[in-house]
Amino acid sequence: MNKKKALTSQKEDFSQWYLDLVAAADLADYSSVKGCMIIKPYGYRIWELMQADLDKRIKAAGVKNAYFPLFIPESFLKKESEHVEGFAPEVAVVTHAGGKQLEEALIVRPTSETIIYDTYSRWIQSYRDLPLLINQWANVVRWEMRTRPFLRTTEFLWQEGHTVHATKEDADSETLRALSMYKDFAEKTLALKVLTGYKSENEKFKGALYTTCIESLAKDGKSIQFGTSHNLGQNFARAFEINFLDKDGERKVPWQTSWGVSTRMIGALIVAHGDDDGLVLPPPVAPIQVVIIPIGNDESALPELKATCEQIKSALPTEVRVHIDDRTEQSLGFKRNEWELKGVPVRIEFGKQELAENKVSVARRDTKEKSSINISDCAQMIPQLLNQITSDIYHGSAERLQQSVTEVTTYEEFLAVVEKGGYALAYFCEDSAIEKEIQEKTKATTRLVSFEEKGENGDKKCFYSGKPATRKWYFAKSY
Amino acid sequence: MNKKKALTSQKEDFSQWYLDLVAAADLADYSSVKGCMIIKPYGYRIWELMQADLDKRIKAAGVKNAYFPLFIPESFLKKESEHVEGFAPEVAVVTHAGGKQLEEALIVRPTSETIIYDTYSRWIQSYRDLPLLINQWANVVRWEMRTRPFLRTTEFLWQEGHTVHATKEDADSETLRALSMYKDFAEKTLALKVLTGYKSENEKFKGALYTTCIESLAKDGKSIQFGTSHNLGQNFARAFEINFLDKDGERKVPWQTSWGVSTRMIGALIVAHGDDDGLVLPPPVAPIQVVIIPIGNDESALPELKATCEQIKSALPTEVRVHIDDRTEQSLGFKRNEWELKGVPVRIEFGKQELAENKVSVARRDTKEKSSINISDCAQMIPQLLNQITSDIYHGSAERLQQSVTEVTTYEEFLAVVEKGGYALAYFCEDSAIEKEIQEKTKATTRLVSFEEKGENGDKKCFYSGKPATRKWYFAKSY
Repeated sequence: MNKKKALTSQKEDFSQWYLDLVAAADLADYSSVKGCMIIKPYGYRIWELMQADLDKRIKAAGVKNAYFPLFIPESFLKKESEHVEGFAPEVAVVTHAGGKQLEEALIVRPTSETIIYDTYSRWIQSYRDLPLLINQWANVVRWEMRTRPFLRTTEFLWQEGHTVHATKEDADSETLRALSMYKDFAEKTLALKVLTGYKSENEKFKGALYTTCIESLAKDGKSIQFGTSHNLGQNFARAFEINFLDKDGERKVPWQTSWGVSTRMIGALIVAHGDDDGLVLPPPVAPIQVVIIPIGNDESALPELKATCEQIKSALPTEVRVHIDDRTEQSLGFKRNEWELKGVPVRIEFGKQELAENKVSVARRDTKEKSSINISDCAQMIPQLLNQITSDIYHGSAERLQQSVTEVTTYEEFLAVVEKGGYALAYFCEDSAIEKEIQEKTKATTRLVSFEEKGENGDKKCFYSGKPATRKWYFAKSY
Repeated sequence: MNKKKALTSQKEDFSQWYLDLVAAADLADYSSVKGCMIIKPYGYRIWELMQADLDKRIKAAGVKNAYFPLFIPESFLKKESEHVEGFAPEVAVVTHAGGKQLEEALIVRPTSETIIYDTYSRWIQSYRDLPLLINQWANVVRWEMRTRPFLRTTEFLWQEGHTVHATKEDADSETLRALSMYKDFAEKTLALKVLTGYKSENEKFKGALYTTCIESLAKDGKSIQFGTSHNLGQNFARAFEINFLDKDGERKVPWQTSWGVSTRMIGALIVAHGDDDGLVLPPPVAPIQVVIIPIGNDESALPELKATCEQIKSALPTEVRVHIDDRTEQSLGFKRNEWELKGVPVRIEFGKQELAENKVSVARRDTKEKSSINISDCAQMIPQLLNQITSDIYHGSAERLQQSVTEVTTYEEFLAVVEKGGYALAYFCEDSAIEKEIQEKTKATTRLVSFEEKGENGDKKCFYSGKPATRKWYFAKSY
């Protein structure tokens, strides 16, 4: 395999680069069902590592995992009017089962608010039952017109948190807690700098009071909605007749939140860090963190080379994920390309000569830097290097994000920014009709208004409508 | 809550005892969708512990996890004729999606052989691609007429291994490897003695060459098919046109296996170990292994009691799952009943007086034995006790299983055994029509023929038909 031929370059065609990479790095494959992908073992392992990390954070917050049905009675979806409007056009419907037509059609869950809250209406009776903090790891289905592996698929895997609280304040806190959990996970585990803030009315979750989100930047300048956390207000609680007897003896309607991230994160990771040679995986989610390659096919030297591979591996802390690539039928060049393509953070190589000097060559995937270190130093230096790589990838991502934001005051400036790629930060009148008009004209949408944005009561004008505006919004094209 | 009222007794009505317990121990709840259950946090945590343990074993065998689509094109299910006959009557069918009728209906997977092997036909080209060893953790749907939480539900969670091999011998080995993995898991992790062997032609997986299984015993004398591992032969490979170029330059059809266990294991665990006071959980899958209860509501003593709870907890190894129940609004009797109901293996209690003597009372859930030990001994003795409990629960299960088997030679003896509950072990002619007749008359089915059964060429006669028979089969009523 020729490295130059494995992938289209990002510059030439970013979309094609993405599709090439997903295939070449063995992340996912197409299936015979429209829009449904197959997550291959290498891609699935990344998901497992993400899951394990996030699941710890979810449990640490006192949220418990449970499992609710895949199917939703059609009538449930209709109970919350905004919600059904948002989801009805994209659901898959089971009309027959067990050889008979069903009396009531069943929706394959596109998200589980309705089926879960039907249950909550039976579980919640008193203030003692609150807060109710539950999460579900599950598959969901949304019949999408245009799909792309990981970034937008008909079926995808995710987690969805569903919490119930006595007061709006408690629901506000939980909404923000979940979002900051996602932010910390993105930064520490995925080495990904993200923007955080509120969605506009147009872009919020259908049925929510408000939606908070994290957005990450792709290297082509597009934004990716990476995770969302909603304060659902009392909308669903009213629709599903959830209420509780409060301490003061009154029956009250509780406040709810829901929050989720999905296999889309794998797509976000690829387009944020990847380069023309392939994936760049931050060590915390790399299925293989260190690959050790013995060099040379001199049969007499092989036993000692292989023994040294094992020696280096066993000297490393057990939590480091190491793979020894001692295939003899592949060339060194082939192997290097393959592990670069697969984004393995650290590659250790050595041949007879280096072995004689007790040295190995260490190559970083992210920077391509190579260094020579003593074999006896590996156990100490490799874990440090992995941490350094995570930190450096994060800072690279943070720098790209910062450089991608341009403040604009006119429509011309706005157009130039969103056409080129990146975020246009602009005072905006927050009129939904105007927001749609901008989207139709430019394909750019409001991504969020930052949590830090306090709003001004001065003389600011919307960059587009000229109407009074108080807050600066991030606009960008998005996946 | 009165303990005597929480559950129907096993003797009075075993089925009702089961349903009472599933509800009272907060394991599962009914949903608004026919036959679909909600797995509540306590029940789901048991599943997570099972999953984590089994997933390690699967990975250790070199099998990699992946994820395939929920939906199967209707035409795929029809490609293997026995398979479609077996599953078609119980599938759920998506006919509409995205607001339109689909050109081809989609089946919600009842099992994933067909959708996975469609993919394998593209992945497998050469002997170098074999063996292909993949597992999937997923939800599946079978439209069952009569459902019961965990034991038989319309939707359930499971893992399904799907492997491909160059030869029949390799597929035989993998079939048995997976089954012995399940057996070891059942014995070590679930403390459950199981029978292992081959299914009859009537009872095998539809589409397989042969099916191996493990069966466990419920306390009411019924048998539970607990896990299965199939050698699929070349049936699916031919149907899905999977073939490979072998070392000798010839195109060959490979051999396949599939194997799975599901949330049904939770049901098997409940009916194997549970008693009139509730669940009896073996420590490896107990969400809480040790509950510590400070006794007394003397407010002046509370801080010291609570501090001692924390001290005992932090002295235990971190992997021991400990819960401190310092609720003040519940009585000691209420708490004891609750933790017995929930099957917590070890209960530590102490009041002011015991504290003065530096002692605690330790109660085992399985035997109800109580002992008094020094607080300073907890860190060492509690982990030992947990191991002892797992071992004792296992031996109890092994003894019940052994006692449940009765060799019979006549139909009258047979009837007496299967009516009373337990296994009738009998020479059987292995005629499928006669097997069905026995089932219709007695509700008992062949559960398996043991791997140890070598077969005889003597003068043995079938207990039912009087025809020549060579092997002894286990018959029982089953879940």
